[in-house]
Amino acid sequence: MHGHQLAGAFLDAVDLLGTFVFALSGAAAGVKSRFDLFGLMALSFAAGNAGGITGDVLIGAVPPAAISDWRYLGVSLLAGLVTFFWYPNIDKRRRLVLLFDAAGLGLFAVAGTQKALIAGLNPVTAIFMGVLTGIGGGILRDVLVNQTPTVLEADIYAVAALAAGVVVVIGYQLHYPAFVVLTVGALLCFWLRVMAIYRGWHLPVAQSQNRRD
Amino acid sequence: MHGHQLAGAFLDAVDLLGTFVFALSGAAAGVKSRFDLFGLMALSFAAGNAGGITGDVLIGAVPPAAISDWRYLGVSLLAGLVTFFWYPNIDKRRRLVLLFDAAGLGLFAVAGTQKALIAGLNPVTAIFMGVLTGIGGGILRDVLVNQTPTVLEADIYAVAALAAGVVVVIGYQLHYPAFVVLTVGALLCFWLRVMAIYRGWHLPVAQSQNRRD
Amino acid sequence: MHGHQLAGAFLDAVDLLGTFVFALSGAAAGVKSRFDLFGLMALSFAAGNAGGITGDVLIGAVPPAAISDWRYLGVSLLAGLVTFFWYPNIDKRRRLVLLFDAAGLGLFAVAGTQKALIAGLNPVTAIFMGVLTGIGGGILRDVLVNQTPTVLEADIYAVAALAAGVVVVIGYQLHYPAFVVLTVGALLCFWLRVMAIYRGWHLPVAQSQNRRD
Repeated sequence: MHGHQLAGAFLDAVDLLGTFVFALSGAAAGVKSRFDLFGLMALSFAAGNAGGITGDVLIGAVPPAAISDWRYLGVSLLAGLVTFFWYPNIDKRRRLVLLFDAAGLGLFAVAGTQKALIAGLNPVTAIFMGVLTGIGGGILRDVLVNQTPTVLEADIYAVAALAAGVVVVIGYQLHYPAFVVLTVGALLCFWLRVMAIYRGWHLPVAQSQNRRD
Repeated sequence: MHGHQLAGAFLDAVDLLGTFVFALSGAAAGVKSRFDLFGLMALSFAAGNAGGITGDVLIGAVPPAAISDWRYLGVSLLAGLVTFFWYPNIDKRRRLVLLFDAAGLGLFAVAGTQKALIAGLNPVTAIFMGVLTGIGGGILRDVLVNQTPTVLEADIYAVAALAAGVVVVIGYQLHYPAFVVLTVGALLCFWLRVMAIYRGWHLPVAQSQNRRD
Repeated sequence: MHGHQLAGAFLDAVDLLGTFVFALSGAAAGVKSRFDLFGLMALSFAAGNAGGITGDVLIGAVPPAAISDWRYLGVSLLAGLVTFFWYPNIDKRRRLVLLFDAAGLGLFAVAGTQKALIAGLNPVTAIFMGVLTGIGGGILRDVLVNQTPTVLEADIYAVAALAAGVVVVIGYQLHYPAFVVLTVGALLCFWLRVMAIYRGWHLPVAQSQNRRD
């Protein structure tokens, strides 16, 4: 029981931290598009919570935690306010934003997969829910500011979330402690994204020449 | 009981009127993008009902009223037809469309908040549902015609819906009659939007200079 | 009982075939936007399943079949892989892609309507669910690659899905065998789209001159 509560608290913390860093990315995108304070906070909320809301709706957990639990709204608005008042700093450290985004992807991918497993879904579906939770916020953020989602264009993005989900499923089957499994999965996803950003790792792109590198 | 029925009928009327004016805004956007008659009606329906459908799905009220109650479809198609045959008039009175949009925002914000309160959600969540219901249709309309949602760019838009939701929550807690509370809330939202449109009221925008006006 | 099972298997086959051809259209759009292999498969899945997922969520059938039944994922990824490795051929036969898209529209429109009728929804709502299921995937595909949905711009698109839904409802009321009704409905929709593509059939467009052709 105590272990379950600890695991639940850890899962919540992972979820809220992911919400915060994704909300930061949404707020930064909103500043670039010159939204006002409320628009900024709306985009922060959308980016931070679209993935989680989608996941909850798909497993029938309504109203979604992001709507009924005020901490998600609070964390999102905090990210919006922080960005609004310290935007110049965040702007200068664009690389930092990319790293936040990578961290959010990993955190949401493991949290989404774990939640789906706890809800009794099978492993493949659970990984799938993790990927959706991880990429959902970024997709809505980019659609709202009228860009092609970076999720679809970026090098090794959804596949990094997939890798994190696989780690969580394996750890869950082997009954490893949740905080170890979630941490390892999130770090793996984060590391893959960092390699893609700094080292240019990427997946093959279809071409007329049909290059398969 | 009689009072409840009256309140329910009033809530329905508010909802349908909101659907109609938002559907008008969707149809007008569709005409500008040169959609055919069916595309126009599809966009009318999307703009008029996306917010309500989202709200219903999030509180687990499925199938949503906008799908299962034919009046929502009827009102939406009526707006599409009206716009199709009298478009030149609506076009000339662009200011009128903005006012319709402002009215729709207020009507949906109060209806969404009230529905969430009746469904037993807490006040903060209920206000939140009201804002989502109010802005959802406009967001989908703008995404579908490939524009950045005016909701995010406009001066005092979501915040006006927020104000309406606060009025509804306070009135609900004090057991004031629903038709008074909903009317006051919708009028407040409408007035805030009108001030933003005619007087240029706006919220601060984050800048490199970090202006906080 | 045996007849029901046959009808169910036929409905599944229609659904999966529709998923496959829509996923092909998503993958082709992804190649044009130069997504990597995973982005391509993500877009294939989105195009192939957004309509079905929306339909399932709206009638409360969660988790949606497209998430919980691995065959939908499998068929979508197959379409992504096929497009990735044979893209030049599909590109050359762009007309073929349009035909696939038309086939997918018809298949989903009849499957969505039939599912809604089986779930006990009334005929108007059921037709509506069929149209949503038919057009949902194409809308998400186009929004994700940052285009105005062809569904809204195309000549006779949603209206063709509507016609298919009407056929299914009439057949259901008259207790005709499902495989006959679904086939006739899907073929009618397909034929209407083909006429629109090859013969330029179209619905009236609102104009300043108020032309009603």
